[in-house]
Amino acid sequence: MDRAIRIIGIDPGLRRTGWGVVESDGSRLSFVAAGTIRVAEAAPLAERLCAIHDRLNEIIRSYAPDEAAVEATFVNRDAAATLKLGQARGVAMLVPALAGIQVAEYAPNAVKKAVVGAGHAQKQQIRLMVSVLLPRASFDGDDSADALAIAICHAHHRGGAAIRVAVARTA
Amino acid sequence: MDRAIRIIGIDPGLRRTGWGVVESDGSRLSFVAAGTIRVAEAAPLAERLCAIHDRLNEIIRSYAPDEAAVEATFVNRDAAATLKLGQARGVAMLVPALAGIQVAEYAPNAVKKAVVGAGHAQKQQIRLMVSVLLPRASFDGDDSADALAIAICHAHHRGGAAIRVAVARTA
Repeated sequence: MDRAIRIIGIDPGLRRTGWGVVESDGSRLSFVAAGTIRVAEAAPLAERLCAIHDRLNEIIRSYAPDEAAVEATFVNRDAAATLKLGQARGVAMLVPALAGIQVAEYAPNAVKKAVVGAGHAQKQQIRLMVSVLLPRASFDGDDSADALAIAICHAHHRGGAAIRVAVARTA
Repeated sequence: MDRAIRIIGIDPGLRRTGWGVVESDGSRLSFVAAGTIRVAEAAPLAERLCAIHDRLNEIIRSYAPDEAAVEATFVNRDAAATLKLGQARGVAMLVPALAGIQVAEYAPNAVKKAVVGAGHAQKQQIRLMVSVLLPRASFDGDDSADALAIAICHAHHRGGAAIRVAVARTA
């Protein structure tokens, strides 16, 4: 017997971490909540990581997702930027895992393809398609739109072999 | 009035996270404990991060350090390696911070200089000097030796302006 599954998508970052919760019931998708965790840049790194942890923990307690999904992305700009992203991403994956929630990873192209239908979509197209797929969605920026896109991607792929393929591609 | 301060040094990695606890009492340094957290490479990323979290949490509860220190390093090899290190580092900094322990960061050169007296020491020199500075130390490899070196560096610099300089250099 099928029941609705709640999925949290997370788009981690040291300054802004987007999050979005959707409910997937068979082929029906609906919007639950979304937002952006903003962390003061001036604070020491350990404090910033704590802030992401605490806020994400509250969100997971509030919306009780069954499964979590994170984009398996890395910045190629420079090592310092990638290290920063990694630190935020480590915390973003740890929090649901500590709550006993499985965390799936998707390649950026898989997320774009699931939402827009093409692997090289622009930010604007993602926002637009998230609004089309989740008509009742309200989100406060690109980070929460991306997080909803990750959750939608997981709703499409969950239980399938696509997850493993998507992860293997970015390993 | 001075009292002995316990410091945990952490050398994070997704496969191996070295840790080392020292006690600093004025100018006297003594060894408390050290070891390496080893995580199965085959496990999913979220599980590996959980394993680092859980083990580091146990160590912090067991040895009750007052302060923590982590090396502010990044790999320049490739973005994927740096992202992996970042994820482990995010968790390694989060765990003491969640326990209310301040986490200092030191540039690799500052750590080498504090232990060997030169900023470009080899692994072998670090192991040797850690053994000289902490005669009763027993450690199980380069990762725990590096973690003890980080703790020694913090013992030398704590309370001073050097911490801020060391961090600023690597930002």
